[in-house]
Amino acid sequence: MYLGRVIGCIVSSKKEECMQGQKLVLLRPQLVNAENPMKFDAGKNTIVAVDGLGAGEGDLVLFCQGSSARQATGMKPLPVDAAIIGIVDSVHIGGQKTYP
Amino acid sequence: MYLGRVIGCIVSSKKEECMQGQKLVLLRPQLVNAENPMKFDAGKNTIVAVDGLGAGEGDLVLFCQGSSARQATGMKPLPVDAAIIGIVDSVHIGGQKTYP
Amino acid sequence: MYLGRVIGCIVSSKKEECMQGQKLVLLRPQLVNAENPMKFDAGKNTIVAVDGLGAGEGDLVLFCQGSSARQATGMKPLPVDAAIIGIVDSVHIGGQKTYP
Amino acid sequence: MYLGRVIGCIVSSKKEECMQGQKLVLLRPQLVNAENPMKFDAGKNTIVAVDGLGAGEGDLVLFCQGSSARQATGMKPLPVDAAIIGIVDSVHIGGQKTYP
Amino acid sequence: MYLGRVIGCIVSSKKEECMQGQKLVLLRPQLVNAENPMKFDAGKNTIVAVDGLGAGEGDLVLFCQGSSARQATGMKPLPVDAAIIGIVDSVHIGGQKTYP
Repeated sequence: MYLGRVIGCIVSSKKEECMQGQKLVLLRPQLVNAENPMKFDAGKNTIVAVDGLGAGEGDLVLFCQGSSARQATGMKPLPVDAAIIGIVDSVHIGGQKTYP
Repeated sequence: MYLGRVIGCIVSSKKEECMQGQKLVLLRPQLVNAENPMKFDAGKNTIVAVDGLGAGEGDLVLFCQGSSARQATGMKPLPVDAAIIGIVDSVHIGGQKTYP
Repeated sequence: MYLGRVIGCIVSSKKEECMQGQKLVLLRPQLVNAENPMKFDAGKNTIVAVDGLGAGEGDLVLFCQGSSARQATGMKPLPVDAAIIGIVDSVHIGGQKTYP
Repeated sequence: MYLGRVIGCIVSSKKEECMQGQKLVLLRPQLVNAENPMKFDAGKNTIVAVDGLGAGEGDLVLFCQGSSARQATGMKPLPVDAAIIGIVDSVHIGGQKTYP
Repeated sequence: MYLGRVIGCIVSSKKEECMQGQKLVLLRPQLVNAENPMKFDAGKNTIVAVDGLGAGEGDLVLFCQGSSARQATGMKPLPVDAAIIGIVDSVHIGGQKTYP
């Protein structure tokens, strides 16, 4: 899994039938800086993930990719390759709380 | 999933039998610019995806990769690893509509 | 899926039993140039794919990766993650035929 | 699989129900330096993996990605795409022990 | 699949039960040089693959990644995402034998 920040959402009306009602959020991956673990570097990719947990813009989340994303609640039959599986409370590195 | 722009299509007559009649489009991934979320950066990759939604050249679409692409309508038995699963109406970032 | 050029082949005699008789070709990914869509840029990777379609050196092909590659004819039980699924006749971008 | 160093952990209380009780660690991939195999280069990615083996911060571990991660003990139904599958005792390159 | 050179091995005693007795080798991906096909460029990644074919250090091998790796002999239930599926005898590019 990877850490990501929710930066927005998308709206799509013409889509696979089974995707009706699924909330689609935009994520920017967050990588722990190699020199300063208190800092996240923003990844370049923009990932669209299904959100079944009610994440809000700005939240740090944990997301799963590939076919395993379909193990998230209610997603088994969906054509999805990314899902939010947790909202992150805190990150701990080297014995310190580095987030929030 | 990722966002992509439909840039063209390919024609292949000698192909896996089961692929007959499938529309194959060329996609260029679109990444939200880190400094200016109103702007998309074009990814370097060229992805070929099956299109069952009738996307047209220039459309911004949502596509799914890997084995999950085969969850799109009618694709379960196909040797495909990318499928368009939605045509994007709008993108919203930081409380603003950034597309279209 | 991705576009690739067949650049060669490999021979392996000591291999998984079930791979006997499978033709293994070397592919170089082909990416549509962002400025000039008439041009392909060569990717850096070298991919080895199973070829069940009789592709020849120099051919532009469509290949599928991951577990979906095993949906190609006769490959379900094989330990393969890349297969040629079509030989490309033509590529069309922005209303123009850009290949061949 | 890849080698990774355990650099920390994350806490998430709002998550997929089935993820309750799973320990989530942060990994930094470790790549063998091309010139000096005694040295590891740190990868840029930050991976979050499920740890069922009791790895500690600083440990060098072996982790598996994708749907295969769900073959680790007790993970079949979970939406996880990365799992620690071994704690590394030693690495041997060119007839020499290069780690620890 | 990709080509890789066996550069070493790892030893892990605390691991997933089902991994007992599996030989774990370190691979460095080998990419055909774009200008000079007689030359391989070394990839940056270090991959750990299960070896059921008895590959030796220095051997050029063919390896499979993802869930398809579990189609190799005896690996179906294992949490593995990379397996050696062939030892390469020769590579042929542009009508020439480029390896060995």
